[in-house]
Amino acid sequence: MRSYHLSHSGAGLSGLSVREHDIPAPGPGQALVAVRATSLSFRELMVLDGTYVLPVKPDVVPVSDGAGEVVAVGPDVDAVRVGDRVAATLFPSWQDGPFAVEHVAQRGGSLDGMLTEFALVDADSLVTVPAHLTYEEAATLPCVAVTAWNALTGDGAGVRPGDTVVVQGSGGVSLFALQFAKALGARVIATTGSSAKAARLRRLGADAVVDYAATPDWAGEVRSLTGGRGADRIVDVAGLLHESVRAIALAGTIACVGFTGRTAPPLDPHALFASGATLRSVAVGSRAQFTEMNELIGAHGLRPVIDRVFPFDEAVDAYRHHAAGTAFGKVVIRHP
Amino acid sequence: MRSYHLSHSGAGLSGLSVREHDIPAPGPGQALVAVRATSLSFRELMVLDGTYVLPVKPDVVPVSDGAGEVVAVGPDVDAVRVGDRVAATLFPSWQDGPFAVEHVAQRGGSLDGMLTEFALVDADSLVTVPAHLTYEEAATLPCVAVTAWNALTGDGAGVRPGDTVVVQGSGGVSLFALQFAKALGARVIATTGSSAKAARLRRLGADAVVDYAATPDWAGEVRSLTGGRGADRIVDVAGLLHESVRAIALAGTIACVGFTGRTAPPLDPHALFASGATLRSVAVGSRAQFTEMNELIGAHGLRPVIDRVFPFDEAVDAYRHHAAGTAFGKVVIRHP
Amino acid sequence: MRSYHLSHSGAGLSGLSVREHDIPAPGPGQALVAVRATSLSFRELMVLDGTYVLPVKPDVVPVSDGAGEVVAVGPDVDAVRVGDRVAATLFPSWQDGPFAVEHVAQRGGSLDGMLTEFALVDADSLVTVPAHLTYEEAATLPCVAVTAWNALTGDGAGVRPGDTVVVQGSGGVSLFALQFAKALGARVIATTGSSAKAARLRRLGADAVVDYAATPDWAGEVRSLTGGRGADRIVDVAGLLHESVRAIALAGTIACVGFTGRTAPPLDPHALFASGATLRSVAVGSRAQFTEMNELIGAHGLRPVIDRVFPFDEAVDAYRHHAAGTAFGKVVIRHP
Amino acid sequence: MRSYHLSHSGAGLSGLSVREHDIPAPGPGQALVAVRATSLSFRELMVLDGTYVLPVKPDVVPVSDGAGEVVAVGPDVDAVRVGDRVAATLFPSWQDGPFAVEHVAQRGGSLDGMLTEFALVDADSLVTVPAHLTYEEAATLPCVAVTAWNALTGDGAGVRPGDTVVVQGSGGVSLFALQFAKALGARVIATTGSSAKAARLRRLGADAVVDYAATPDWAGEVRSLTGGRGADRIVDVAGLLHESVRAIALAGTIACVGFTGRTAPPLDPHALFASGATLRSVAVGSRAQFTEMNELIGAHGLRPVIDRVFPFDEAVDAYRHHAAGTAFGKVVIRHP
Repeated sequence: MRSYHLSHSGAGLSGLSVREHDIPAPGPGQALVAVRATSLSFRELMVLDGTYVLPVKPDVVPVSDGAGEVVAVGPDVDAVRVGDRVAATLFPSWQDGPFAVEHVAQRGGSLDGMLTEFALVDADSLVTVPAHLTYEEAATLPCVAVTAWNALTGDGAGVRPGDTVVVQGSGGVSLFALQFAKALGARVIATTGSSAKAARLRRLGADAVVDYAATPDWAGEVRSLTGGRGADRIVDVAGLLHESVRAIALAGTIACVGFTGRTAPPLDPHALFASGATLRSVAVGSRAQFTEMNELIGAHGLRPVIDRVFPFDEAVDAYRHHAAGTAFGKVVIRHP
Repeated sequence: MRSYHLSHSGAGLSGLSVREHDIPAPGPGQALVAVRATSLSFRELMVLDGTYVLPVKPDVVPVSDGAGEVVAVGPDVDAVRVGDRVAATLFPSWQDGPFAVEHVAQRGGSLDGMLTEFALVDADSLVTVPAHLTYEEAATLPCVAVTAWNALTGDGAGVRPGDTVVVQGSGGVSLFALQFAKALGARVIATTGSSAKAARLRRLGADAVVDYAATPDWAGEVRSLTGGRGADRIVDVAGLLHESVRAIALAGTIACVGFTGRTAPPLDPHALFASGATLRSVAVGSRAQFTEMNELIGAHGLRPVIDRVFPFDEAVDAYRHHAAGTAFGKVVIRHP
Repeated sequence: MRSYHLSHSGAGLSGLSVREHDIPAPGPGQALVAVRATSLSFRELMVLDGTYVLPVKPDVVPVSDGAGEVVAVGPDVDAVRVGDRVAATLFPSWQDGPFAVEHVAQRGGSLDGMLTEFALVDADSLVTVPAHLTYEEAATLPCVAVTAWNALTGDGAGVRPGDTVVVQGSGGVSLFALQFAKALGARVIATTGSSAKAARLRRLGADAVVDYAATPDWAGEVRSLTGGRGADRIVDVAGLLHESVRAIALAGTIACVGFTGRTAPPLDPHALFASGATLRSVAVGSRAQFTEMNELIGAHGLRPVIDRVFPFDEAVDAYRHHAAGTAFGKVVIRHP
Repeated sequence: MRSYHLSHSGAGLSGLSVREHDIPAPGPGQALVAVRATSLSFRELMVLDGTYVLPVKPDVVPVSDGAGEVVAVGPDVDAVRVGDRVAATLFPSWQDGPFAVEHVAQRGGSLDGMLTEFALVDADSLVTVPAHLTYEEAATLPCVAVTAWNALTGDGAGVRPGDTVVVQGSGGVSLFALQFAKALGARVIATTGSSAKAARLRRLGADAVVDYAATPDWAGEVRSLTGGRGADRIVDVAGLLHESVRAIALAGTIACVGFTGRTAPPLDPHALFASGATLRSVAVGSRAQFTEMNELIGAHGLRPVIDRVFPFDEAVDAYRHHAAGTAFGKVVIRHP
């Protein structure tokens, strides 16, 4: 079997290599997964360029997100069976409840990831994927879809029918957040910098799209589109908290999900206080949240948006395409 | 304008009469609604035959459920405007939060109801109806749809994606509960005594249908269909709590919604305790719940199931048809 | 080391015997506890007379509740250390979340219990006990105190300051419920059949005591003491649900905790529905709930009420005293 | 009757004057309160110096917080009766649920406040005060105690027994937060810059006190005192969010309550994200929260900490003393 390895965090594309290994046998509590597809998230770029905040081990098998088929299980495995179509959770030990320091080990970081033909994993870190999804589609879920689900539903009552939700741009978290928010009965305002993408966002279900190229004050536009009240929830993927606090309703929630913009202007605490809002840090989610999300995806027949699929041998090209930042939806790698 | 009146609770169909009135003018906080449609629920039969538990005033304008157009508003009205398409809440003073004794006054009972051409109501007891619904469809919502919504979502986390929900038969609450539960991502098991209705329940989205004519032990069948665990939630409309406790999962919830069976066998407390379940009494819901439900109906484009529509002049026939108990969905009266 | 054994469920006091064993050594994940005290709950009487609903293995070491000192730990144990003062959870595998079929194994039933000098247990089924409690006091917690805590706080918002809570009689659950409800800021109405106990209940903090010997209609009295609204929560230990539904407020919660009265009249579903209340089955609680409860006990310096302490050699007398039903508080056995 | 007036926001102490008025009569829904005491909060200083963010009307009767006796009620008043001992809510129209733009009118700002001998108020903006409190004590509650209560309990599950809560300094919010957190079973770490105040904080119940004069890295010290995990909740009154994110646990909550430091360093969004925490803006609370808090105060017999009481004629001296910032607890004005 072949696996990609990254020599060290920050090594860039030239640090990637392919190596041959024996197929391992599962021990107690373990499952062997024939990986059929992986997908790239923003975190993979940070792992590559050395800006990722969590530890990355030397020679790690990269990529947190993958889906495949269980081909063998070790003793004492109840969670899955041979033949199950599964995806792997990003934080294998985060089963349920809030995130804690005990959960910090992660695939494609301190643990080996999924850019490999066969992955040996703890059986209780797998979830069954919705039956209507291909492996390519299922591989898009572990990082960004679970993050979007957590951002929308992981606190208190979560999004309620009739809430207004803002999503930013066309990255993975944002497109899933759009689809999930619509399924939950919310009104969605999407932002984008491209009129072509605006049309695609509308087709995905966005009730309104704000083009920040044409309307740089997107926050003001959101307030205007909500009759002055502001949005009930903003899934902030860009690190634009200083603008999100101007667009959020009193008692609304801003989910701070990451920094695709790489820089994030400092936030004035007075502005946050004056907004009356709650600002919640969200990073992926538990296995229980993953399972619940899969049920919603299955019930509504939702389909992940895939920008492009690359063969396993061209994974480096997949990274390059992803890094270009022009994709609408996920970049996926199909395994042999 | 014409209104139906019921001489007294228990008077039966012969107690119904039509009278002519002047069209009233709204006072402070009031709105005048041109009622376009009403619908009949099980409560209307109890009001007619004298078995309704809450007070019914003499000469009441019957029927709690109606929808129409706001044609005039009094001073100090912010909630609605002339031209709004609205439905009336069943308990006009129940705005939000849990039910309390202060909320007990109800339309078609201690207050005049909607079987009239024009209804004078408190403006804050109206809700805007989903834009895609006809008045006939909107008139089906106030009693049974709100009850179904409350039964599914009014406690704690409510139904979550992947939960198994049981609905019983083809009455109004059950069909709405089926549609809402599917929209919330649940798996639905419906029970029925008719194979013709079984097919319709499947078309409405039921994942499984148990025919209790063929399988009298529906509770056992539910347990079998859930791999022995039982259902996470049962919307019990029939008063079959003694059977529902056999079909419910540990830590599941039975919403006790009413007694369409008219009789309800006593419940053995030991059986309830052994089930590990929660049994929750549900009667309609607040205006806030009504509004939230409308948002979900709008977001998913759900359409109420109407069995048959009668003209205003044939309201007595509508009552008769409803009393026959063979309807699949709601019996509606179209106003002039 | 010596352990009591019960030949089989239903064997009665004559089925109890003491046997000598070697002190076992803890394996991976296990801890050896030198048991310092055990306490008797109603369940022990049911185990003895064969009426307990869950399985009891032959020759079981009886008694679910015990506390002691960790004297050895096996490999891979993080949860406790040698020297820790601990109590054992009743359902060792119920760590957190709602109860499920996977959690059903229990000490003093399908698993060996605590009426022994040394108990070998899974380390993650132990909780640290509040520092201000003696071992005798700590041994009273696992069954009845955790049940009381779950009954008050295990659902939604739980008891809020200003709520009125009803507790029945002087058994273990009721006295803990009284103490916890007061600590949570509630008003407590206690019922009793004895004027001597009424005085003790008042000293424990009861705001009002209803003597059902003098006032058989205790439910009516509760309603009267609450200005007609009824109690917000009733911890029903006696199986008197048919009376509790008359004493509960609209949207209130009756926690059904057990049947100390041994018989429980059937419940009329119409009466439950008319009450507008929720009826929740409660049996003990998770390890997380146990830990949280211990924190409250520690913070408020609460002390369990102990009726009488017997030496290990006189455990049979402890059972007899407990069975007499006259105790005010817990019956405890002190181990050598 | 006499009332203080402030000529305009920003007028300072010289803008205060006393005027004579006729005692007004309550209209429908109103109550006349003989004010017995008022108390000063940080907001009063901002109103005086013109830095308050919400509108302040010209010639406003200042001071939001007051308590007194109902001496007359108008028609249609159910909420209170003559003779009731009451306090006034800061936002009179905020009855329940989350804060919204409709609730923004406030006493001592856009509405007349309580620094008057008689206040005419909406009856449903009054709450009954705990029976064991003096009027001076009750007057301390509306702004800072309700804020502290909301900061601890207004979101999701709120503080749970065993949580670690950090309070900063000796201002009103902090001392109430300390007392409430202890009553809720939490462990409290207080910060202070004075060893004399440290001793008083310990006597009030603080489990640990960090002297930031001696230990400027209070955040590091909090982390050390929590075994590296950080605090579960921080009630940030000073605007030190950039330090609070270093002291908070993963999935913990920082309640942002205000800016007693007047300046607040900008917050780095990356630091917030890395903390994994939630940052929640809290400003006072609803009447329902006020009522619930009063029940807790009553149940536990808590007493507000008063630094000093000034007579009505010396209100200007009370302002001066409050502005000096050396008080431990509340500055109160006793009315004639």
